Amino acid sequence: MVVAEITIIPLGEGPSVSKYVKKALEVFKKYNLKIEPCAMGTVLEGDLDEILKAFKEAHKEVLNDTTRVVSSLKIDERKDKENTIERKLNAIKI
Amino acid sequence: MVVAEITIIPLGEGPSVSKYVKKALEVFKKYNLKIEPCAMGTVLEGDLDEILKAFKEAHKEVLNDTTRVVSSLKIDERKDKENTIERKLNAIKI
Amino acid sequence: MVVAEITIIPLGEGPSVSKYVKKALEVFKKYNLKIEPCAMGTVLEGDLDEILKAFKEAHKEVLNDTTRVVSSLKIDERKDKENTIERKLNAIKI
Amino acid sequence: MVVAEITIIPLGEGPSVSKYVKKALEVFKKYNLKIEPCAMGTVLEGDLDEILKAFKEAHKEVLNDTTRVVSSLKIDERKDKENTIERKLNAIKI
Repeated sequence: MVVAEITIIPLGEGPSVSKYVKKALEVFKKYNLKIEPCAMGTVLEGDLDEILKAFKEAHKEVLNDTTRVVSSLKIDERKDKENTIERKLNAIKI
Repeated sequence: MVVAEITIIPLGEGPSVSKYVKKALEVFKKYNLKIEPCAMGTVLEGDLDEILKAFKEAHKEVLNDTTRVVSSLKIDERKDKENTIERKLNAIKI
Repeated sequence: MVVAEITIIPLGEGPSVSKYVKKALEVFKKYNLKIEPCAMGTVLEGDLDEILKAFKEAHKEVLNDTTRVVSSLKIDERKDKENTIERKLNAIKI
Repeated sequence: MVVAEITIIPLGEGPSVSKYVKKALEVFKKYNLKIEPCAMGTVLEGDLDEILKAFKEAHKEVLNDTTRVVSSLKIDERKDKENTIERKLNAIKI
């Protein structure tokens, strides 16, 4: 299980990109992933192969309607503890 | 007003870094910023100078107790719309 | 053709992680990719599927010998111009 | 001494953003920093306060001529070794 964060940013489509972020979210929903939209990226939890496929499909989906896209994927994987969004957030409660 | 995301990661202090993330969160609370912890980073909203000072202080606070720290700051600033965590999240509701 | 940047960072293996970065570079060399190591990440140029496979394999290779790994992949893809490391660097020569 | 990477990306100014990257590079040159442009961001080496000021000024300079800018700053600081671009690149030579 991996926790990840994805951003998909089209360049040149105007300062407002929310419609493209929504396209990406619609792609993530097709996969077996837990999805938590945050204000600076979408956090995902699930199998690494699912996350890689979802990342590629969301990037391609946005590029389909645009000219240039810069996308980023950050993954956090560990072998010593259950790796979930919930556990990570609980661990930092102050 | 700027929306930002910060990560502060010490290298070499073990796979568990939540105590350092909590140190960073305690630093952010000292500033006039809205704080939303996410599973892959802390989202902040506020004045850019406040965010830059909070970023530097949190990074230095964690480095104080460790040997090496890799920290990242991502900022999103726009002139055409009110830039808040709330507005960004509402814009992508599907 | 895509230009990308990858970072692979193990947590808890000490402040020095160059041996792990070298493992990742050895993985990238197995793929049909142009490779430019930079001081804050490895820049790659090539087919997106090759880059995704190389990213996954490098991440898993480092995780094999460690407990926790945070890896990031940033990709830049455009349809209007040839997308290469060389063209990007030439475009910003000052 | 800190090694850092900066990206400054305006949204909505077209797919070509090299003129804005060049503006950012002109800002960095005003500071006492070593500058290494890479294809996915600009690597800098120098004092942390200089880097933070250069980052803020470059971001504001690009926002001056545009509507929305997403900028990122990643810093790597360590206490056990001399932290330079050159040492980092030499450590990963394969």
